[in-house]
Amino acid sequence: MTGGILHTIHDPADVKALSTPDLHALCDEIRATLLAYGHAHGGHIGSNLGMVEATVALHRVFESPHDRIVFDVSHQSYVHKMLTGRAEAYLDPAHFDEVTGFTNPQESVHDQFVLGHTGTSVSLACGLAKTRDMERAATGHSSIGNVIAVIGDGSLSSGIAFEGLNNAAAQGGNLIIVLNDNEMSIAGDFGGMYGPLAQLRASNGTAQPNLFEAFGLDYRYVGDGNDVDALVAAFEEVRDIDHPVVVHIHTLKGAGFATQHTSNTGSVGSTGNVSHDEPWHSDHCDLSDAAPHAGQCEASHWQTPDRALGRPDDPRKYYGKMAMAALEPRFASEPGLVVISPATPGSNGITHEFREHAGAHYVDCGITEAHAVTFAAGIARAGGTPVVATTASFFQRAYDQFFQEMSLNRSRVTVLDFLGGLSGSDNTHSGAYDVMMFANIPGVTMLTPTSGADFLADLAWSTMPANASGAPDGPVVIRVPGSAILEHDHQTTADAGKIAVSAPSPTCGASRMLSYRVHQRGAQIAILSLGNTYPLAERVAEQLYADNRMTATVIDPHQCSTLDTDTLESLRDTHQLVVTLEDGQLEGGWGEKITAYYANHRELEATRNPQVINIGAVKEFTDRVPLDELNHRYDLTVDGVLARIREAWNGAIPMVIKR
Amino acid sequence: MTGGILHTIHDPADVKALSTPDLHALCDEIRATLLAYGHAHGGHIGSNLGMVEATVALHRVFESPHDRIVFDVSHQSYVHKMLTGRAEAYLDPAHFDEVTGFTNPQESVHDQFVLGHTGTSVSLACGLAKTRDMERAATGHSSIGNVIAVIGDGSLSSGIAFEGLNNAAAQGGNLIIVLNDNEMSIAGDFGGMYGPLAQLRASNGTAQPNLFEAFGLDYRYVGDGNDVDALVAAFEEVRDIDHPVVVHIHTLKGAGFATQHTSNTGSVGSTGNVSHDEPWHSDHCDLSDAAPHAGQCEASHWQTPDRALGRPDDPRKYYGKMAMAALEPRFASEPGLVVISPATPGSNGITHEFREHAGAHYVDCGITEAHAVTFAAGIARAGGTPVVATTASFFQRAYDQFFQEMSLNRSRVTVLDFLGGLSGSDNTHSGAYDVMMFANIPGVTMLTPTSGADFLADLAWSTMPANASGAPDGPVVIRVPGSAILEHDHQTTADAGKIAVSAPSPTCGASRMLSYRVHQRGAQIAILSLGNTYPLAERVAEQLYADNRMTATVIDPHQCSTLDTDTLESLRDTHQLVVTLEDGQLEGGWGEKITAYYANHRELEATRNPQVINIGAVKEFTDRVPLDELNHRYDLTVDGVLARIREAWNGAIPMVIKR
Repeated sequence: MTGGILHTIHDPADVKALSTPDLHALCDEIRATLLAYGHAHGGHIGSNLGMVEATVALHRVFESPHDRIVFDVSHQSYVHKMLTGRAEAYLDPAHFDEVTGFTNPQESVHDQFVLGHTGTSVSLACGLAKTRDMERAATGHSSIGNVIAVIGDGSLSSGIAFEGLNNAAAQGGNLIIVLNDNEMSIAGDFGGMYGPLAQLRASNGTAQPNLFEAFGLDYRYVGDGNDVDALVAAFEEVRDIDHPVVVHIHTLKGAGFATQHTSNTGSVGSTGNVSHDEPWHSDHCDLSDAAPHAGQCEASHWQTPDRALGRPDDPRKYYGKMAMAALEPRFASEPGLVVISPATPGSNGITHEFREHAGAHYVDCGITEAHAVTFAAGIARAGGTPVVATTASFFQRAYDQFFQEMSLNRSRVTVLDFLGGLSGSDNTHSGAYDVMMFANIPGVTMLTPTSGADFLADLAWSTMPANASGAPDGPVVIRVPGSAILEHDHQTTADAGKIAVSAPSPTCGASRMLSYRVHQRGAQIAILSLGNTYPLAERVAEQLYADNRMTATVIDPHQCSTLDTDTLESLRDTHQLVVTLEDGQLEGGWGEKITAYYANHRELEATRNPQVINIGAVKEFTDRVPLDELNHRYDLTVDGVLARIREAWNGAIPMVIKR
Repeated sequence: MTGGILHTIHDPADVKALSTPDLHALCDEIRATLLAYGHAHGGHIGSNLGMVEATVALHRVFESPHDRIVFDVSHQSYVHKMLTGRAEAYLDPAHFDEVTGFTNPQESVHDQFVLGHTGTSVSLACGLAKTRDMERAATGHSSIGNVIAVIGDGSLSSGIAFEGLNNAAAQGGNLIIVLNDNEMSIAGDFGGMYGPLAQLRASNGTAQPNLFEAFGLDYRYVGDGNDVDALVAAFEEVRDIDHPVVVHIHTLKGAGFATQHTSNTGSVGSTGNVSHDEPWHSDHCDLSDAAPHAGQCEASHWQTPDRALGRPDDPRKYYGKMAMAALEPRFASEPGLVVISPATPGSNGITHEFREHAGAHYVDCGITEAHAVTFAAGIARAGGTPVVATTASFFQRAYDQFFQEMSLNRSRVTVLDFLGGLSGSDNTHSGAYDVMMFANIPGVTMLTPTSGADFLADLAWSTMPANASGAPDGPVVIRVPGSAILEHDHQTTADAGKIAVSAPSPTCGASRMLSYRVHQRGAQIAILSLGNTYPLAERVAEQLYADNRMTATVIDPHQCSTLDTDTLESLRDTHQLVVTLEDGQLEGGWGEKITAYYANHRELEATRNPQVINIGAVKEFTDRVPLDELNHRYDLTVDGVLARIREAWNGAIPMVIKR
């Protein structure tokens, strides 16, 4: 049934040419296509299912790319992509990977930006509109027509979204903000504004207080945001409007998903009266008990394809669950122990079950990383024990708060840094920059555990009572282990699921936590290998021994925020080469600090100054490059490291094979 | 007249003990004290003058430190400090420097946090309140009573403030948000919310839309925020309230300032009916034409003491004015050229005169660094030429946007990075971390001009039309020169005020802009000296020649985001020592990249691998340490550098004196 009309849509002009019945049929086809695509490929399906009619209506009414549509986060742009020449990428499995999960100007003139973080659409739209208005004032014309920002109610919790709303009205001129209100963030919405937002929905947009009017904005409401005819009418009304306006549309996240599961007959009506027979729960779609509609998807945030269902947890979920399992038994006796997740609990193993058990010990503060870290600093100041958990790249939103409220104020905050280091992620979610971000902030301790047991010990230490002996005196960032460590854990632990939750030992103080760990002491070559690269160091050492009968020194530094100069000095007399490995950006990263240490602390005797080489990621953005390929690119393989060692070995370093 | 009652106030309990007439007299004394202190010492006087009665009322009603008062930004905490045992620091010039300009827990148990960036008070207060409520739920009691956040209407424009408001209502429990509405940000308020806020004032707090109610918060209004009796009554009403509430108080920024200037007789009534005879304009207080009240201070943001009036511009103002003077003539022919200042124009030489001339080419977007950078990315996408200007440490608020919207999207944004590098600033405004922040982001070009002419050429290049030959293909951060460069410019330029605004030459392409500049070619020692440290490199070279007849190579790298490997390679054959100088943090900074380059690109012949030493700042926070002292601490002096060179020289490097 899929693709009959959709196959004929090559451009938004084709949407405009359809009859009204065909427009309805197109919506049905798109929804069916999204569902089939989701099952086969995975993706952010929930928000896109809700946006089918709105996106069709946008392209029916507006003239992209003359009119500029900015999709917030832009993971809800699948329908937009289908309507702008990229339908094959959703219809034909052979083409599934030809488009990214976000808008991308390199793919289409209809895409304005690459956006994977929330809340920036209004500010970006302000910039487009400002330039248009400046050009028009100067020359009477501009290449830009209407400017439309499409933002979800979840994204609206981001501080920058409010900054944008506040600036939009002050700027004036044509600017259309489509608020896609599906009553859901990634998980449930959280915040005081959602009550008044519900009153707006209940009153057909007439209730006060009206948040958007409070920001000085004009406001319209469309009650059925899955009714394509109503949406077309609403958008026609605001087209070419001469001032900023919010068009608040009430959509259903995951519309058609539950129905499709129960009947798969496409009972979603084209007028949007989506019916839900029953809630449906699976790994596909994390249904929240708090979801206001039965059948509504919580996340579909990283929805997995069918073929991946039932697979073992990825490292984020695995170690996230492990951390939560370690914290949960402490809640009863530690009232100030609070886990804070800015909106992405599911991805990080913070399950529904945990959240229910945790009660007030768990806070989903919306997509508000800056608030989350500041809130944590407040908890710490009051003597509590906050643990903030989210994805490394999202933590970039709280950079200033890490500096100011957290570190400068010596706030005992624990940061769980998920997806840190290299991965096959898209370019907006890469964790290659986390060590550079965290470890250079004065006063931040950053730990890089290399096993599950290690990870738990680190968490136990960072969350020790403030007055306990050996407790950290400030913030601790713990980089959650990645796939290389998980693999290693699976290999080395008979039953990885049963790693004991180790209580911090009394001797487990700061000095011990910050000491490098010499796992094998050899000579000539020392390999210092941070976090996820540690298993590689062991393999390299094995190979060195197998090939040359050379026993290299293998060190897990376990942290990257200070240098253990005792250990570094201990290498001088017996090592000619120090190799650092890290799965993040070299520039501003960790290994180059080791290099600089030896360079700036040279000994008179030339032979007592080991050569240092640094292996890690170059400074670049990468987009969905498989991790194996990245590891090869950066020499983060056994062969790559050995080649770099040989390269150095053939140089100025004397060859002394011990047997 | 000052200090009669104030001298008797050692603790908030003393405020509670006063008779009502004495309470009024105390307010008068405090205001007079602030004015005298401001004349003698300088400081954030405007906001404090407005907060006299509110602060007195807070300490009259609440029980600090059991009740926790969090001052946003906290530069309006002078009155709080006077009432909590620190009055001498404002009364007696001998004690003026004994307190910081912000709250500081190390000074007093009544201070909750060190805060110098805006908008975080509500989130911090949420954290304090959360912990209290968790403790109470578990144990029935807590060491924390009422939690009060004091936030200004200017701070309210920060995204994190909205995140905090949105979370406060959802959290519930006792939380009192005092909105100090003086109708002014640092400069005028900017944003759509200020219209509805004005309606609230005009309606005695009854109008809709009500922004705070839209965030789900209870709301009260006090029309005369300089009437201490009214404030006491209002605070008594909300004391021990069981849910979050906003107490919106309407105060007068700079209350008493204009009056004091015209009559100096203290006509400020204790009931707060502050009269203003006429506006007053001076270097003290930057009066905005947009100021809603005659006599109201725009900024007093960095109000200077009397003794500093009429002094030459500091580097920020000097180079800021220079940049604006270069841009202004282009506005007529470049409609898309827009200067964006997140709220601190005056400090950076963006004068009232410029703003008037610039018209729509200038945007003060409020205290919204994240929006500012994102807005700029939107302008760039539309083909415009945005220039975003603010203080280095404030730009930390936009770290994620620099990564995502700006760099990943190849947005041609120019960032003017003020106060970058070392300075005698307080710990919340230090610029020692800017190179580490900007230059490690993939795709960002960071320039470090070493003269005014250089700075203008850099600005001309970064703002070249996108299609011009040699134009940058992405964002450019220009670090505005500091005091060492300004001194150098004054010395080397007959009339520094008349530096020609150099148009970019056709050959001035990226490769030329990114090439290191070898200003003196010598042998044995090469000094690579970034930005503000460049004049030091010249002095060191002079001394080396004077002492040893040694001609060192002196290089101005001019940028710190890529390595000019051609130049680095050219040093191999003739140099045994490479010295890097930078006035920022070494870890994650620039010089260690040079070290890592040579370490990772060694030659077979050992003598062809120069030793590298790095001189710069250690990883630490510093608070109001004079620049000279920091330079000594970090060896950023002629003697310091020479000592480091001698240290290296006595090591493994052969001594070869050329004559």
